[in-house]
Formats: sequence, C-alpha cells, structure tokens
Amino acid sequence: MSWILDETVLPDLARGAALLGTGGGGDPYIGRLLVQQAIRENGPVTVLDPQDEAELPDAAFVVPTAMMGAPTVMVEKIPRGSEAVVALRTLEAHLGRRAEATMPIECGGINSMMPLLVGARTGLPVVDADGMGRAFPELQMETFSVYGVPGSPMVVASDREETVLVDTGADDVRMERCSRAIAIQFGGAALIAEYPMTGADVRRTAIPHTMSMSLGAGRAIREARESHSDPVDALVAFFATTGYENVRTLFTGKVGDVERRTTGGFARGHADLRGHDGSQLRLSFQNEHLVAVLDGEVVCVVPDLICVLDEQTGEPITTEGLRWGQRVVVVAISTPPIMRTPQALAVFGPRAFGLDLDFTPVEELVPVPAPALT
Amino acid sequence: MSWILDETVLPDLARGAALLGTGGGGDPYIGRLLVQQAIRENGPVTVLDPQDEAELPDAAFVVPTAMMGAPTVMVEKIPRGSEAVVALRTLEAHLGRRAEATMPIECGGINSMMPLLVGARTGLPVVDADGMGRAFPELQMETFSVYGVPGSPMVVASDREETVLVDTGADDVRMERCSRAIAIQFGGAALIAEYPMTGADVRRTAIPHTMSMSLGAGRAIREARESHSDPVDALVAFFATTGYENVRTLFTGKVGDVERRTTGGFARGHADLRGHDGSQLRLSFQNEHLVAVLDGEVVCVVPDLICVLDEQTGEPITTEGLRWGQRVVVVAISTPPIMRTPQALAVFGPRAFGLDLDFTPVEELVPVPAPALT
Repeated sequence: MSWILDETVLPDLARGAALLGTGGGGDPYIGRLLVQQAIRENGPVTVLDPQDEAELPDAAFVVPTAMMGAPTVMVEKIPRGSEAVVALRTLEAHLGRRAEATMPIECGGINSMMPLLVGARTGLPVVDADGMGRAFPELQMETFSVYGVPGSPMVVASDREETVLVDTGADDVRMERCSRAIAIQFGGAALIAEYPMTGADVRRTAIPHTMSMSLGAGRAIREARESHSDPVDALVAFFATTGYENVRTLFTGKVGDVERRTTGGFARGHADLRGHDGSQLRLSFQNEHLVAVLDGEVVCVVPDLICVLDEQTGEPITTEGLRWGQRVVVVAISTPPIMRTPQALAVFGPRAFGLDLDFTPVEELVPVPAPALT
Repeated sequence: MSWILDETVLPDLARGAALLGTGGGGDPYIGRLLVQQAIRENGPVTVLDPQDEAELPDAAFVVPTAMMGAPTVMVEKIPRGSEAVVALRTLEAHLGRRAEATMPIECGGINSMMPLLVGARTGLPVVDADGMGRAFPELQMETFSVYGVPGSPMVVASDREETVLVDTGADDVRMERCSRAIAIQFGGAALIAEYPMTGADVRRTAIPHTMSMSLGAGRAIREARESHSDPVDALVAFFATTGYENVRTLFTGKVGDVERRTTGGFARGHADLRGHDGSQLRLSFQNEHLVAVLDGEVVCVVPDLICVLDEQTGEPITTEGLRWGQRVVVVAISTPPIMRTPQALAVFGPRAFGLDLDFTPVEELVPVPAPALT
C-alpha cells in the first residue's frame, strides 16, 4: 500500500541510506536538506508499493532518477536541485511519453534522496524499490540490467541545465563509460534519468521495499541510541525481519591510515584499521567498500554490505568521512538471493571490480554470530 | 549554380583537402575510398552553390556532418561508413525536422569527404561551403559559432551505431568538451552531426565555395606535376583567384625529429626540419599545424595555413605522415577576412591554442613573395 513521506522521516531515512551506502553512494545529508526544502515548498511525497498492481499497473511508465559521480566531489559541489527534473523531462521528450512515477536506482547514499526531490518538485510518486539493493559505483551494476531492462536511452544533466542523451542500445557498460565521461566534464558529478521501464519491469527486476528498509534501519539505530542500547543489536533484530537477514560484527577498533584519491570519476582507495584486540582490518573501496580483509583473511566481499559505524552512536560513516583516530565498529550485512545469482555476480560480484576472488556469502565467511558489544 | 560531383574528381578533391587540412583534418584518402564506393552504389552527389537563393532558400534546413577525433587514430580505425547518417538521422528525429542538405564543417582533411559520403548514401545535396575555411582541431572553432549559430544540439555516433546527443545551449566550448569525451570513449574518433542551421545562416556565417577551392587546388598540383612545372607556382597562380590570395614559400629542406603523441583526444607535437641552406624550422601542431618558427622567428601562425608538401611531387603531407628524411617544401597560405576578425581570432587565433602570440597575417610576416623554386 502507498504511504505519504513527509520531512519528519528524512533524518532516519538518510541514516539508513548511509548504512546501505556501504561507505559510498554519496553522503545523504545534502540530499536530505534538498528534499526537506522541496517538501516544505511543495508538500509531501507519495511512496508506491511496487508489489501492489492497483497502485503500479503493469503498463505504468517509471523513470528512475539519480546522481552519479565521485562522493568526494559531491561534498563540495552541491546540486542546485533542478538537474534531475531536467534529466527526467529531457528523457520524457525523447521517448514521447510522460513518466507516471520515479524510483531510486540505488537505496544507499544520496540516491535514496534524489528521487524524492524529483517527486516533491514534480508531484510524481516514488516507487519503494531500487536496482542495487545498496550502493554500487557504476551504472550497469543494477538488477534492472542483470534481468534485462536496458539503461539506455538515458540523460545526464549538468548544474547549468546542459543535457547529454546517451543511447548505447542494450550495452549498459558502454552507457556507463559514456555517461561517466560526461559526468567528469560536468565537474565530477551530475544528475541522471535512466532505465525507463514499466510497472511489470519493476516487479520483475527491482529489489522491493528498500526505501522502507532504509527508513527502518535508520530508525533502529536512532531508537537504540535514545534508549542507550546497542545499535548493532538493534540492526541484527531489524534486518532479521528483511531479506538482508544476516548481520555480523566484523571488527571494532580505530581508523589508521586512509588512502583516498579521486580518479577516473571515482573515489578509490583503502583504509587500514587497528582493532582494540590488536587485529588489522583493511577496507578497499571504489566509492563503496568492496572487500574487508581481517588479519589477511577475507571476511566480507561485494555485493554483501560492509558498513562502518561510529562505535558510540552507531552513526554510519562514509568513505569520504573516514578520519584517523575514529573509533568504529564494522558490520557486514548479507544480501538477498536476487543479488547473488550467477548473472548478478557477473555484473557486481568481486571479479566485476577486478578483485581476484570469488564471492562467498558473509554468513559462510563469518559463520558464528559475533557476541553483542557491551 | 549547382554541379554534379562524380568519382572522377575525388583524387583532386582529396589532394586539395589534404592541403587545406594544414597538416591535420585526417587523411582524406580513407574518406575518398568510402565516397568512391558510395557513389558507385548510389550515383553522384549534387553540390549546391550557397550563394544561389533559388538552390538554397533562406528557410532550407542544413545539417553539417563530420568526423571528429585524432588523425593518428583515424589511420587505424576506419569508419564503417554509416555512422554519419546515423548521427544525422538521430539529430533530425530530435529536432522533428528533416535536413534538406548537408555541408562540411571543415574543408580540410577527411571532413571534405564525410558530407559527400552522407550525400551519396542519402541522396541529400551537399552545400559548397564550410565553417573553418581549413581544418581546426576543436568543434567550437567554426565561423558558424563565431557569427552566432550554436553547435548544439549535436549527435556523436560510434561505429556500433551508439548515439550521444549533446545539448550545451549556446556554449560551443562545453559542446566540444562533452563530445570530445564521448569520441574518446568511442575509440578516439567518431562521426557527428552538428550546427543545424538555415540557408540564411549558411549565407551569413559559412565560408563559401571551399569545396570547389579544394578541388581547384588539388587539380593545380596534379596538372603542374603532369606538365613537369612547379607545384608551388601553380598554387600561387590558383589561390590568387580566391579569397586565400597570398601563398608564400617558407622553407625547403628535410624532416628531422618528429615528436607526436595522441593525448586528450588529439594528436599533439612538433616537427623539426633542417633547410637545404642550413636554416631550422619548427612546426608545432594540435592535429593541425599551429605555428611555424624559422630560425627563431614566427613566419606563419594560426589561422593562416601552414602546408607541408613533398618537394618533388607537391603532394600534401599530413602531420601523422611526417617521417624523418622526407624532402619537403613548406608553404603558407593567407586566410580570407571572415577568418581574421577580432571575433574569429578570439575563437581560433593563436591565444585560443594557448600560444603567447598575437596573430599577424602571413603576408606581413613574409612580405616579399619568395622566388619560385627551380
């Protein structure tokens, strides 16, 4: 059933989206402020249940909207707010069809917010689903693409309302290369409209209810903090009710060296952390965390989620927010079956990122649930 | 008055276009073979006189077509032949209007041929005019742009028939940056349709009769060779009848070191030549020759033309064809007034290429006509 999203839930949604951003996706804080202002000016946003055919008929036309670029750039280069609507309208004009809803392409990071900004500015409802089930750095890394919805034609819009329409047919890797080249020309970040699809396509290819899940996860962390209970315990309890059922504490300790560079349109690097027990954790990232290696052993690898939380508050920390000396807890979260098929792993498994490593589910890598922190 | 272009004139046209390519523009030889095949399959091409309002009414819709990229890439990556038509058709669909003619954007190099290929494949006439009056490396370096016709919207098409539609409003430098980024993704060269305009725009902003001029220059070189007379004398006589009235011999000698790299989507570098009289000439290029420095003195600078010819045959040599030991004659050709206005020099004068140098006409730099070679 649909529900109405007003500004009161935005802090919890942003927190949950930062968690599901698995270090990347862009800090949702900036997006949250943009959505808050748009809701104040235009009223709340209707969120559609993707599994309700009465709300989202098979023939409904859905155009996802998003930001693309390096999270390190987004810290300094704030969207003006109208770009994603320009991208959407340009794609509609090209296709000769008006969208009946927009949708996130990823539920982690700033892209939890961008479709809500479009919804608030245009009055379009937003579908409670996405194509990554987390955040990924590249545009072909979508369950939409994996299960046969092409990303093209798509539009990249700049803060000057310049537009570039990319059509690479069924080849979403080529779409990623072309649109990334344009995003770099547009200053390292840009807004997009892509993967135009029907309601039936949404039901077949999207990961349902991930916006609600972000909101629930963000709320669980906040409520644990307010009741002085452990945020990780709260996340274990919350995710057990979702398709992301396994939560593991990988590590607690302090952030040491962080090597980070913005190159080829991405934030790439790694962070070395030292455990309170003397253990060593290395996190490697391309926008998002890709692999966690604890004392030489892989303990979690993409597409499973690697999330760095402030040890005291449970607040998620993005890769661009990692600083020497932060005391953190690193948790892993398992992904649902739709993200672990051979077709899906070919597109966003470890080897798709150049890692010489096969995917192993985190519940096998860390079989025994870690004891709760005290 | 219009005329019919058949394959018999292609060798002369290619030779003249190589001359007007001023070292760059891509070797017209490959384009010539593509046009020859298309004319054999589809018949000859009608060439329109831009100054004849009966042939090209003010309201006629003209869409120029071209290749963009590094000439060094074009040597190895041959167009399949259909890309420019795909670019044209995609732009027509976007604008909701069919082109009534196509036109070169530059009269030098391979782009003398690409609109003829489009003409032969589609039946569209080709306007005898262009926007560079030579070859230039960047897409904003057009008299069209200088005198107020925007390049956007424009389409870049790949050899896989992928298309990217770029719309940067009135900012043709941004259009250049975006389309160049895409051309690099497409392998370093791509076909484009840009600067859509009316017949009235053509008359106001284009350099007229440059295709005829290429053909005439190429014929003059051939006829001189066939009659064992001097090709440079023939060029002096030919260009005296055009708007490019001053031809100067700058240098005769041998090619020494050539430093050439393909970077940022361009072929950049310089060539050092040693004169038979011991003088030293340095030619610097970005796709095209930009400046000729003889024994430390500037003797010709962009937008005036610097052309390297084989000393014996008068055959033009492109920058990517320069080799150690070639015996060459280097000539300069003056440009017409439309290319020397302050507005034009701001877009394609020396400072537009980062040279710390003001434009001086070649007829002032080399005031006395050089004696004919014997």
